[in-house]
Amino acid sequence: MIQIQLTERQEKIIEIVKANEPITSENIAKALKLTRATLRPDLAILTMSGILDARPKVGYFYTGKTSLSFISEKIQQIKVADRKSLPVVIDEETSIYDGIVTLFLEDVSSIFVTSKGCLVGVVSRKDFLKNAIGGLNLSKTPIGVIMTRMPNVIVTTPDESILDAAMKLIEHEIDSLPVVEEITLEDGSLAYKVVGRITKTTITRLFVELGNDG
Amino acid sequence: MIQIQLTERQEKIIEIVKANEPITSENIAKALKLTRATLRPDLAILTMSGILDARPKVGYFYTGKTSLSFISEKIQQIKVADRKSLPVVIDEETSIYDGIVTLFLEDVSSIFVTSKGCLVGVVSRKDFLKNAIGGLNLSKTPIGVIMTRMPNVIVTTPDESILDAAMKLIEHEIDSLPVVEEITLEDGSLAYKVVGRITKTTITRLFVELGNDG
Repeated sequence: MIQIQLTERQEKIIEIVKANEPITSENIAKALKLTRATLRPDLAILTMSGILDARPKVGYFYTGKTSLSFISEKIQQIKVADRKSLPVVIDEETSIYDGIVTLFLEDVSSIFVTSKGCLVGVVSRKDFLKNAIGGLNLSKTPIGVIMTRMPNVIVTTPDESILDAAMKLIEHEIDSLPVVEEITLEDGSLAYKVVGRITKTTITRLFVELGNDG
Repeated sequence: MIQIQLTERQEKIIEIVKANEPITSENIAKALKLTRATLRPDLAILTMSGILDARPKVGYFYTGKTSLSFISEKIQQIKVADRKSLPVVIDEETSIYDGIVTLFLEDVSSIFVTSKGCLVGVVSRKDFLKNAIGGLNLSKTPIGVIMTRMPNVIVTTPDESILDAAMKLIEHEIDSLPVVEEITLEDGSLAYKVVGRITKTTITRLFVELGNDG
């Protein structure tokens, strides 16, 4: 993919097509007082880029595409599976204190809580801080007591786009999403296995890569 | 800016120019067994996009530009000043406990600490959590005791690119940067005034906008 700064003449052609579609190249040339041959490279660029659509014997149409939609196409192609990092998971019987120690050892902002290997909740640095000054006995209280519990946990899946995952982080004002896969338990009920993690750090790192690439 | 998927013929032209630069359009046409007129739109696209450079009476050169560098140009144009949010600032004499309360009331991940209005340090949610379980008297200990102190605070300025700010967040493994302006104190020494804040949330929100735009 290459990117091109439009010339003034090309911008004018877009305006003419917008106002008169469908319009033939002959009539565009007339409007600009130029020959069709002069316009040929401009029209080639505008149709190749998808800004104009050319239909034989009808003329040119404006497609409504603008520049930024192409950056968004690039971003929308990236999947959660391509960027997820390793999750930090502890059992719901673990004490809050041990949860905090894990948080520091692993240097993460959230911990995913499981029971029999399946996701039951999430605890963030914020949850820990609130309870650390709240007078609870941190060594004797299980982490399950303070976690955000399923089904209130916002999750993502490996095949979701990274853009949708980023939108969940913003919309729900959270720092981290567990990446989950659905599994069927012996009793036939559905549950989530945690297979990864997407955080605002994931998105910031991706932004830096996009900005530095090339 | 528009973006274009190169055709097979355009890719071939690039290969020919790479191998034979400088080369005239006549010789490119010969190599492809096509007329110069046929190639005109292709050469127009390749020079307008900056992939090829044309010098009169010499011929075409390959510039070495590739596709992704254009997304990065878009990202590199965005300044810290365009995206900074309001900073949350407290005085270094404030107690740690009041700092934590401010953190929750303002719902931020870091607080900037000032003395006489000038930046002297930063305290993160992580710093607070570490000290909340560390046995300090939170109500009686000033926040200045636990903060990361200048000159160890990583800062950004309004005219820095948001990409450079994002790189600082990743490189130094921090969640937040104070946006500062340099001021001269009465005694002639330099100090920082805090005028904003850039966080991983800023970057994630920008990423979402770029991905949804158009």
